[in-house]
This record gives sequence, structure tokens and C-alpha cells, in this order.
Amino acid sequence: MAEPIAFYFDFSSPYGYLAAQRIDELGTRHGRAVAWKPFLLGAVFKTTGQQPLLGIPLKGDYGRRDMERSARLLGVPFTIPSVFPFMSVAACRAFYWLSDRNAEKAKVLAKTLYAAAFAGGRDISSARAVVEIAESVGIDGTELAEALRDPAVKDRLRSEVDSITAAGVFGSPFIVVDGEPFWGHDRLEQVEKWLETGGW
Amino acid sequence: MAEPIAFYFDFSSPYGYLAAQRIDELGTRHGRAVAWKPFLLGAVFKTTGQQPLLGIPLKGDYGRRDMERSARLLGVPFTIPSVFPFMSVAACRAFYWLSDRNAEKAKVLAKTLYAAAFAGGRDISSARAVVEIAESVGIDGTELAEALRDPAVKDRLRSEVDSITAAGVFGSPFIVVDGEPFWGHDRLEQVEKWLETGGW
Repeated sequence: MAEPIAFYFDFSSPYGYLAAQRIDELGTRHGRAVAWKPFLLGAVFKTTGQQPLLGIPLKGDYGRRDMERSARLLGVPFTIPSVFPFMSVAACRAFYWLSDRNAEKAKVLAKTLYAAAFAGGRDISSARAVVEIAESVGIDGTELAEALRDPAVKDRLRSEVDSITAAGVFGSPFIVVDGEPFWGHDRLEQVEKWLETGGW
Repeated sequence: MAEPIAFYFDFSSPYGYLAAQRIDELGTRHGRAVAWKPFLLGAVFKTTGQQPLLGIPLKGDYGRRDMERSARLLGVPFTIPSVFPFMSVAACRAFYWLSDRNAEKAKVLAKTLYAAAFAGGRDISSARAVVEIAESVGIDGTELAEALRDPAVKDRLRSEVDSITAAGVFGSPFIVVDGEPFWGHDRLEQVEKWLETGGW
């Protein structure tokens, strides 16, 4: 059985949102499962000295235009949320908590959170917003709200983020196929070719 | 007659080198001339707070791997020059000086300079190296060596760089088609589609 494709992303990453629309289908075309791995980009930015794209002179204006253009090309609804960039800690904690119980449902939650933020423009940074969105896909809101306050759930995320950053993941989306790293929504065509050919 | 495609690049940019292998052919497929416009990225980095990619922790190692992988995919020879990043002032001055006399020959010089650096690994930062490479494609070396010391030639480059950066070009390669900006070798597929469709 082939290794799953690892799909790393931050819930506040517009290009992560675009890749999330395509990655499962891409895996399916090549008989591969996709392991979704949200993390917190802010932790990595300290190492690389990066800053959020849209705040950078010149690059920021272009970045917004490029995101919108890339979304239109895919036929995917796209907007920059009212609060941006935003904290995605609650979304990440909810994802891993649910993932331990039902991995497929956790993916549904991730897609719904992304859609709320980047199709609906909603601020998804608070625990309350995450719980409401989770309820809309049939998750018990009371149970999730408790989980988001649970130190064990917080530790779970911390340890995921630590191991993801230790593995050298520094951007979102970031895809690893059989040990080969690809950074960016704009590398999905190369990911596809890598899966087709086994590398070049 | 359709506007030429504007192709902005720095001679020390690996992704600029990759784009230079493809841009003229891409233009030809769509009946467009391509105006080559070298500039100095260092001037822009001050505005955007960027730094050379290969020096950044994590991103640098990935960047090298990505360049090599992208070059292999194109079937283009690729190496990082012995001195890198390097100053490309002499190469730029030679280009614009020649361009005023023979635009097609200036393109040949640009391609030869890029090949010397990124296929041959040669240090092309000095006036002497640029003159030698120019001689290899039939340009009068004595005349060029004099031109590289000419204040008018220096002014010519300064004014090109000023107008290019004032136009908002902040990376290499940077392509403008009918007013639409595209940043990066990895946007050439979108450039092609833009030319095919007139935009989306």
C-alpha cells in the first residue's frame, strides 16, 4: 500500500484553501490517501523571518490579485475574510480532536471551516465560531467546546506543530509525496506529475 | 498590432534563467514580441524587505531543490554559480547599450550570459567576464569595455531600473501582458492561458 500524501496547511492560508479544493481528488486519481495536517504558520515565520504576504509593500497587492485570479481560474469562490490574517489555533485544535475520533469527519470540518473563511468571509478565529461551524456539520457543540478548553487537546496540537516544523515544513500549503517536498498551491501540477512518474 | 509581452528579470535570478528558456517561444505561439527588460532586484528588495531566497533558513534549502527539480522537468541544464547571489550591474549595462544598437543581438547576449552563469556556473559579475562572453557572440569587446565605463551608459541603466521599480515590478521573473502582472517562472502557464483567452 502506497504512503498517503501529506498535506500541511494553515487554516488562515488562502493558497491552502485553494489546494484544499483539489488535493483529495488528486490523491484519488493516483490511488493515494491524503493525510490532512493543519499547523500554525506563525511558529515557522519566526525561523524563516517571513511575514504575512498581504502586508508586504508591492508583493501584498500583487498577492491579493494573484489569489483572486488563481481562484477564478479554478472556478472556486474566494474572498479575503473580514479579519485577516487570523489566529487558527481553535480550528486546529478542533481538527485534531475530531481526527482522533473520526478522520473523515475531521476532513469535512476542515473543508467547512475553510469555506466559511474564504468563500463566506467569516471570522473563524474564535472557539465560538469554530463550535458553531462544527455544529453545522453534525458535531456535538457542547462536547467540542469542552474539548477546546482541555489541556490534553492543547498539548495534542502543540506536539503536532512541533513535529511538523521540526520536519522542515515552512509554508502553506506544503505537500510531501514519498519524501519529496512541494511548497505552494502552484506546485500541484508538479505533485501530480511526481505521482504519475515516480519522480524525475 | 498587439503589445509586446514585457519580460522583467535579474541576471542573477535562477527562475529568471528558467523563464528565459521559454518566454520567446511562448510569445511566438501567440504572435507576440517579447521585450526583455533586465533590472536590479536588490533595489526592490529594500522596498519589500525581501532577502535572497537561498540564504533563508529552511526556504533556502527547499528553494535550491525546487530550482533543480524545475530545471530537470524542463530538460534545461542548471547549476548555482560559484559566486551567488552576484552583482549583475555590468551584465545589465551591456544589455541596454547593445539593445539600443541591435535589440535581437542584445537578446542573444542575455541568453548567453544566463547560460554562462546557470548552465556553466561561471561568475559573470565583473565587467571583464561580461566583455569576454560578449566577444564570444561577435560583439566588439573593446567598444563594450569602453561603454561599460561611460557615464551615459550607467545613467541609461539607472533610469531603466527607476522606471521598472516605479511600475511596481518586485520580483524576477516578472511578466506583464496587456497590463496584467504575473510574478514567477511558475506563472508561465497562466501567462499562456491569459494570451489564449484574453483573461478570465
